[in-house]
Amino acid sequence: MAQEAFLFPRRIFFGDCDLLGIAFTGRITNFAIEAIEAFWDELLDGCGWLYLLTEEKIAIPFVHLTFDFISPVKAGLQLVCEVRVQKVGASSVGLQVFGRQGQTTCFDCRSTSVFMDATSFSKIPITDNIREALLICLTIPAS
Amino acid sequence: MAQEAFLFPRRIFFGDCDLLGIAFTGRITNFAIEAIEAFWDELLDGCGWLYLLTEEKIAIPFVHLTFDFISPVKAGLQLVCEVRVQKVGASSVGLQVFGRQGQTTCFDCRSTSVFMDATSFSKIPITDNIREALLICLTIPAS
Amino acid sequence: MAQEAFLFPRRIFFGDCDLLGIAFTGRITNFAIEAIEAFWDELLDGCGWLYLLTEEKIAIPFVHLTFDFISPVKAGLQLVCEVRVQKVGASSVGLQVFGRQGQTTCFDCRSTSVFMDATSFSKIPITDNIREALLICLTIPAS
Amino acid sequence: MAQEAFLFPRRIFFGDCDLLGIAFTGRITNFAIEAIEAFWDELLDGCGWLYLLTEEKIAIPFVHLTFDFISPVKAGLQLVCEVRVQKVGASSVGLQVFGRQGQTTCFDCRSTSVFMDATSFSKIPITDNIREALLICLTIPAS
Repeated sequence: MAQEAFLFPRRIFFGDCDLLGIAFTGRITNFAIEAIEAFWDELLDGCGWLYLLTEEKIAIPFVHLTFDFISPVKAGLQLVCEVRVQKVGASSVGLQVFGRQGQTTCFDCRSTSVFMDATSFSKIPITDNIREALLICLTIPAS
Repeated sequence: MAQEAFLFPRRIFFGDCDLLGIAFTGRITNFAIEAIEAFWDELLDGCGWLYLLTEEKIAIPFVHLTFDFISPVKAGLQLVCEVRVQKVGASSVGLQVFGRQGQTTCFDCRSTSVFMDATSFSKIPITDNIREALLICLTIPAS
Repeated sequence: MAQEAFLFPRRIFFGDCDLLGIAFTGRITNFAIEAIEAFWDELLDGCGWLYLLTEEKIAIPFVHLTFDFISPVKAGLQLVCEVRVQKVGASSVGLQVFGRQGQTTCFDCRSTSVFMDATSFSKIPITDNIREALLICLTIPAS
Repeated sequence: MAQEAFLFPRRIFFGDCDLLGIAFTGRITNFAIEAIEAFWDELLDGCGWLYLLTEEKIAIPFVHLTFDFISPVKAGLQLVCEVRVQKVGASSVGLQVFGRQGQTTCFDCRSTSVFMDATSFSKIPITDNIREALLICLTIPAS
């Protein structure tokens, strides 16, 4: 991954929106999760969640998710999620997702995920090459 | 609402689950939100989110959501969400949702929502009768 | 299963509804699929899709789905899906789902699913005990 | 819209997939609906479902949807939906969606939608400029 912020654009569909014409909260949580999945694929050259699980029996489940909803995500406008690496632990990774529409920050999501053996569901250290890739991202300035 | 914990049972469907056979994180966030919606309807005798929005032009959007994922939500088992009132402010309400399967606590969600005029999207005080109903719930012992 | 129509009630949540205040079409397709999943569990004493897949390596994927949307599924009202067996072939099963709110029929869904070996994804005959259970349902009068 | 087939690519996310590692049927129905929404926006220069509803009080609800599921939609591969105009009636429009991954056709969806006054929910004739745009699409050769 080039050393620049990872941006993930997404269309807001009619079906994402509720009676108020804004994206339903339960859809927004999914937008952030989608952006994080896309981040992993970008970071690991396409070998993200799906590859790790099916080929290496590694799962990276979320253990924590926090959302601050700052401004509504509006229908008819593109949402751009920026994913940033916040923290790299022995087994855990902290990622932050800013969701923006134009200049407006709509939400700020912070996540913690833990590397696990997908068979035993026990914690494992982050693989060296993945750790290295994550550490490079720690230094990227915000967009 | 009787002065006992509000419990909201839910079937976990096949389509809620991912490759690992456990509920996908983005589905779990929705389970908690569904339980909170059901809580409001129970608290206000059926006059929850939908009624408040369409009849009284009041919206109660989430401004904050936090999830701790403690144990996987498994397919084929019922999930029971317990919703508790944590905090009642001037305009804001803090609700907590514990998701359990049998004796296992799967997740702990804390939310903050704010009463708003649905037209102007500006903060308004919690209506008196709603505040009263919420305050009664503050005293309910955990299930 | 007792020889009566299989009815599956479901709450319509705020998040199921779109700008028009009615359930979004893409949610309705899921309501029918949920009802069909519940029907299989009822028919097979809890050993439906999940059990067949994980314990017997049998999948019953849809090969065809048709929906007639007759009347909107409204927020704030319960939806009751009635699932009926329409056709039992060598490998395939035709199920029909009527979605109703009160006396109003909201949609009529017809599905065809095929029994498959979940490993090879090749067609297999319907297991005898399942065929027997399905055939009994063929004779049930409509609710 | 240029007179060529309308193609709508979409990433298949981890959360779209079930235990079998293929997109859940209830997600596929949504992929087709998303493609149809995108088609309308392309056809009408961004003034599709959302604009018609909020600015012109016109809704175009589905009255019929049919799906043939031909081959599983696999995780980790892009899905490309091709939307084609099949039929233009007085009030109704028939659209077809082919979902493909590479050379494989995964599903074939046919839809009928009806132009309605969003306030009265009564049928209205298709607006002239929209009819014209649709008729041009009728002549486009398949991709």
